[in-house]
Amino acid sequence: MPASVTVARAALTRLMEPSDLAGLALIRVVGPERAVCIAKGEERAGTETEHKVATLLEEAGALRSWLGLESSISRWAPRINDLAPERDLAVIRRLGGGLLIPEDDDWPVALSDLGLAEPIALWCRSRCRVLPGLNRCVAVVGSRDNTSYGASVTGQISQGLAQRGITVVSGGAYGIDAHAHSGALAGGNTGNLPTIAVMAGGVDRYYPAGNEELLRTIAQEGSMIAEVPPGTNPTRYRFLQRNRLIAALCSVTVVVEARWRSGALNTAHHADSLSRQVAAVPGSVFSANSAGCHRLLREGSAVCVTDAAEVAELAGVSGDHLASEPAGPAATHDGLNVEDLLLMDALPARQGSPPEKLSSVAGLGIASVLAGLGRLELMGLAERIDGNWRLRRGTK
Amino acid sequence: MPASVTVARAALTRLMEPSDLAGLALIRVVGPERAVCIAKGEERAGTETEHKVATLLEEAGALRSWLGLESSISRWAPRINDLAPERDLAVIRRLGGGLLIPEDDDWPVALSDLGLAEPIALWCRSRCRVLPGLNRCVAVVGSRDNTSYGASVTGQISQGLAQRGITVVSGGAYGIDAHAHSGALAGGNTGNLPTIAVMAGGVDRYYPAGNEELLRTIAQEGSMIAEVPPGTNPTRYRFLQRNRLIAALCSVTVVVEARWRSGALNTAHHADSLSRQVAAVPGSVFSANSAGCHRLLREGSAVCVTDAAEVAELAGVSGDHLASEPAGPAATHDGLNVEDLLLMDALPARQGSPPEKLSSVAGLGIASVLAGLGRLELMGLAERIDGNWRLRRGTK
Repeated sequence: MPASVTVARAALTRLMEPSDLAGLALIRVVGPERAVCIAKGEERAGTETEHKVATLLEEAGALRSWLGLESSISRWAPRINDLAPERDLAVIRRLGGGLLIPEDDDWPVALSDLGLAEPIALWCRSRCRVLPGLNRCVAVVGSRDNTSYGASVTGQISQGLAQRGITVVSGGAYGIDAHAHSGALAGGNTGNLPTIAVMAGGVDRYYPAGNEELLRTIAQEGSMIAEVPPGTNPTRYRFLQRNRLIAALCSVTVVVEARWRSGALNTAHHADSLSRQVAAVPGSVFSANSAGCHRLLREGSAVCVTDAAEVAELAGVSGDHLASEPAGPAATHDGLNVEDLLLMDALPARQGSPPEKLSSVAGLGIASVLAGLGRLELMGLAERIDGNWRLRRGTK
Repeated sequence: MPASVTVARAALTRLMEPSDLAGLALIRVVGPERAVCIAKGEERAGTETEHKVATLLEEAGALRSWLGLESSISRWAPRINDLAPERDLAVIRRLGGGLLIPEDDDWPVALSDLGLAEPIALWCRSRCRVLPGLNRCVAVVGSRDNTSYGASVTGQISQGLAQRGITVVSGGAYGIDAHAHSGALAGGNTGNLPTIAVMAGGVDRYYPAGNEELLRTIAQEGSMIAEVPPGTNPTRYRFLQRNRLIAALCSVTVVVEARWRSGALNTAHHADSLSRQVAAVPGSVFSANSAGCHRLLREGSAVCVTDAAEVAELAGVSGDHLASEPAGPAATHDGLNVEDLLLMDALPARQGSPPEKLSSVAGLGIASVLAGLGRLELMGLAERIDGNWRLRRGTK
């Protein structure tokens, strides 16, 4: 890979906001290096390029506001003077990270499902360069103001996922996000990255400040990634765009706690529109922090999950992830046919009854009663005392 | 309606267990009066009748154990001597009730969805003879060992349903059932029956004993019904069959709390197989009493409901039942287009910025910035101070 492509993409991530579809279309048509030249005004796009860009945008159903290369160039113009891609690349290297670009073999193929909105590049601080594949990643997201219930469930699910070798992806925010990352880190290192924080601002920033220690640990043991360059502030728009990356990287997005309106639902909707699995954790109907989860369940947009095994099963990595049924106590009458069930219901617990009496009580012919008593005796459910029959002691 | 049909059906409810398909097929083919005669051996069925009964049973996919009129007659034989339908009818009249039969105009049409398993008759103790129609009835069911959470939700949902003129149907048992009935009674009398208890034993019995006072109130203010005659004990088989009646009478079955294995799930499965709506109330993932509800949600067999309004909406009686969205606080940035959102993110809260600075921070052309500032000012979101722009005070 020529370094110039990396430098060009580094520059473009500073020039263009995430999901700047006109910019992304231009990059597709002329490549990253010429896209920089055109954005800088060093080269004219030409009618053929303009036509191709317009076609791509139309196919992507892009907003009118992104259309027109002319107006896009004037949108990028105010940032041209700030471009210093070599400096940005030096910064990320100093942090022990690097820039991952679509031309790399390690580029996560899952991101191509974003179509034209596939990011220009990813700024990474990571324990290892290769991010896990789609079905090895699960997003665990939720509101910033979690309850203690939400914290417990998030911790258990994330720890359980990490223990199964599944990477927990979240947004590095307070609340559920933070519990998701710490739970995964507590799950230990199984060879894979335990957790990935997808940031809305630059990966050199520890935002929010209260999560600095956690984010430092994630950068060392897991991975911190962003599509915006170092030094970039998170904004509302970038938070919303960041959510699409979380959704795209993961085969399953689990919403643990979310209010009726919550950024976590935005991630869920992204996941849904990418045909990724969405899951929601239920909670008390009296908790406003579960209202968004219940909304997803009620609308049929999410599957109900209650533990890590169920989430892993949705991710569907392999058979050993299948959630096991709780081993409920088998009732003694399981598997009985209707007649034997009627007969068992008719058997007294203490004083035995003769078959004729049982025949009347159970509403069964005498032949059925005699045959059924034999079967129940064999199963250890009935016993005979002096020609009368009763439930065997200890049978319920 | 000739009284003899009522007497015959009264007798048949004592002779045959609920869902005795061979008996029910015989009644369909020859009518209730001749069915009694054939069961008593006073008349022979004849090959044509036997053939028609066998055909009905085959169409219904009946169990092999029910097949064959011959063996069925020997099954009924032990109970012939106990028949005293006039006495049973006198008992129910003394209790202020009566026998409802399919030949009556008031017979609940919803029960015909049970096909061959439609009950022979219903023994009723009721404030009014007419039971509400399918979409005026909602089943609220659950486990006997409820939590205090389950009790609260059940009470609120049932009271809310009764207040909307919807009848709450349940099984009269301890736990969720009892809270469902009391909640509905507390919801008050809106002209309709507030609640119906469908019993597994006779309606003259107060079973379980601890619910005697509640059941007495239900018989007065609501309705107590059973397909078995007075004096009949509830058995496991009759509990399971009773569940199919609850499911068939209601357009929606709500499971509030249920363990992984629970009788309430049996009712839900009946409802599902009758194409009735099944709903489940979510709860803590750490509560074993919610595991059955979460199972239904996870398997996609139930819709998630959290309050009476959502249940009423499922019952779909009319527009005034539509659940209203929680009136979450609308965010100030709702409805902004992408460019105005980027611009608003770029506006400082205190010291104003000039449009050129905003253009660079937001990544927008200067023309877009000036137009956007005008729109935001009109919406009361931005303000100008000495040619510089900032967020209007109080905007978040």
